[in-house]
Amino acid sequence: MRGREENVKQKKKIMPEFKDIYKEYFDLIQNKLFEIAENTKPNSMKEPFVYLIENGGKRLRPILTMLSAGAVNGNPLEAINSGVSLEIMHNFTLVHDDIMDSSPLRRGKETVHTKWDNSVAILLGDLMLGIALQLLMQDAKHQNFINLQEVFNDSLVVVCKGQALDVEYNIKQDINVDDYLDMISKKTGNLIKASVLMGCYIGNANDKEIKLLEEFSYSLGLAFQIQDDYLDLTSDDTGKIIGQDIVEGKKTFMIIRSKELAESKEDKELINKFYQNNGLQRDEIQNMLNLITKLGVLDEAKDKFESYYQNAYDSINKLKQNEYTTMIKELVKLTKNRKF
Amino acid sequence: MRGREENVKQKKKIMPEFKDIYKEYFDLIQNKLFEIAENTKPNSMKEPFVYLIENGGKRLRPILTMLSAGAVNGNPLEAINSGVSLEIMHNFTLVHDDIMDSSPLRRGKETVHTKWDNSVAILLGDLMLGIALQLLMQDAKHQNFINLQEVFNDSLVVVCKGQALDVEYNIKQDINVDDYLDMISKKTGNLIKASVLMGCYIGNANDKEIKLLEEFSYSLGLAFQIQDDYLDLTSDDTGKIIGQDIVEGKKTFMIIRSKELAESKEDKELINKFYQNNGLQRDEIQNMLNLITKLGVLDEAKDKFESYYQNAYDSINKLKQNEYTTMIKELVKLTKNRKF
Repeated sequence: MRGREENVKQKKKIMPEFKDIYKEYFDLIQNKLFEIAENTKPNSMKEPFVYLIENGGKRLRPILTMLSAGAVNGNPLEAINSGVSLEIMHNFTLVHDDIMDSSPLRRGKETVHTKWDNSVAILLGDLMLGIALQLLMQDAKHQNFINLQEVFNDSLVVVCKGQALDVEYNIKQDINVDDYLDMISKKTGNLIKASVLMGCYIGNANDKEIKLLEEFSYSLGLAFQIQDDYLDLTSDDTGKIIGQDIVEGKKTFMIIRSKELAESKEDKELINKFYQNNGLQRDEIQNMLNLITKLGVLDEAKDKFESYYQNAYDSINKLKQNEYTTMIKELVKLTKNRKF
Repeated sequence: MRGREENVKQKKKIMPEFKDIYKEYFDLIQNKLFEIAENTKPNSMKEPFVYLIENGGKRLRPILTMLSAGAVNGNPLEAINSGVSLEIMHNFTLVHDDIMDSSPLRRGKETVHTKWDNSVAILLGDLMLGIALQLLMQDAKHQNFINLQEVFNDSLVVVCKGQALDVEYNIKQDINVDDYLDMISKKTGNLIKASVLMGCYIGNANDKEIKLLEEFSYSLGLAFQIQDDYLDLTSDDTGKIIGQDIVEGKKTFMIIRSKELAESKEDKELINKFYQNNGLQRDEIQNMLNLITKLGVLDEAKDKFESYYQNAYDSINKLKQNEYTTMIKELVKLTKNRKF
């Protein structure tokens, strides 16, 4: 009884603190991003850059960098430049990917290439990469600068390879779950890993800490993306359209797994239709959803991302605990409990 | 008499040596580029990368890096990684610029976005930047690595700003010669400067050497670009179409200067037509050429680039002379004497 009460007290104590810290870090990151975007020249680049930053985002990556630095007993505030440099790289990938995917909207607002044009979007992305590199260079005096630069370079290469595979897989028919997981770990997990690693290097982590946080980031990245696919079919967020991925023909975990498991002629026909037409009409979403549910793939996906989240917790729990490891776990909980 | 004979002998001695060295460096650079392109994954990126490298180029930038390292008594062979990293950045700008300019051809062959598509070209450019960064990282143990990285970052930012201005100036009517020179020094001069600076840092140049070689690169960049504009109207290379820039509506040095100098109603009308229609029909090239010649702009351009070339020589001559300063001057001569 006593124990439980203490748990509750502890929780009450931690929760607001986490939210306060999140808010504090978030504001620092936003200020840095706006300062950079507003000082960009020429004007033809400044305007879309500011627009992009105004369009928001949870700033998960730089927050992870800061918390990781703290988790290995470094100073989280020293991790701002490297974290924000990765956030800018992340936004660069969004701007360029939106052109490739011909996406008209992002977070409900026009994408850069829609509001301006392809040239502006291509060039803004390129410029943002240069600006991200210059920001990272502000940590040049850090003893681990070479590692920070290496993480930046490698994650740029890997994220491009992930996007190349994504484009390839849009055409290819025979993608299995491993191909898919490899592709999303390159596209999504890679930058999460980079965020955590940069925090490690800023905080002068030892090899064991680096290994554990790397494992953590790998699990978190996969959990996050599989959950994303899952939420597309189950989200109860008002206003969000269920099954958008099915309409857009995205070969998500759910689709690939269903293709592997489908046995009846009818089921196979529906899946083949999805593959042949690169997606289904809106009025067929429910049929596909029924199929995915019937094959147990929805449950399988949920089990899978929950187990990756558990792995993520486990890795963090193996670290020497401090306030930042606690906050990382809170952040994971927040991510896991998201509804969209 | 004696002196002249010696001059001739010296020239005979130098010329083949320069060509041999150029060939040796060129082959080393090509091998490195092919090795990198051929090892690129996935295949959807490897193929256009190899195609791009096969399509050639003089590799002026990495050769300048190697010769600059030698000019400050460093080892030119140590400058290969940094030089090639800039060559890859240069090629990245070509791939992305060709999309923005909707250019179907480069060096007589289809551009990447024409032969494949915009997505491949955008992504290949992005990936190439990451690969260039990884290549530069191979010099991480060099005592001046931070300077090398800084040169890379800054030149990426500047080249993007130059391209942004170029896109802006395509629409803007009132560009003066200074705007134009600022834009081309960002687009072209900047990467030449970066090549020379990287050579300086590889060769552990002192401040005076850096300053002289920086001045040299500034002059060379401007000379090179104004000559490029000039050759578009005067080239006697068989097969090259005279006045392509006029048809494409490029606001070159020649056009901007003619606009400033034109006084008669007739002259002003032709220039206004060029500005309003973003270029002229093929059958009007000769009229524009006559106008440019009459206003003395052709001679002015020639004087201008020749004087920048002279400045470039002068800067090199202020350095302590060695075989590499001689070769840099030979390279400048080769560039100056080009016919297209």
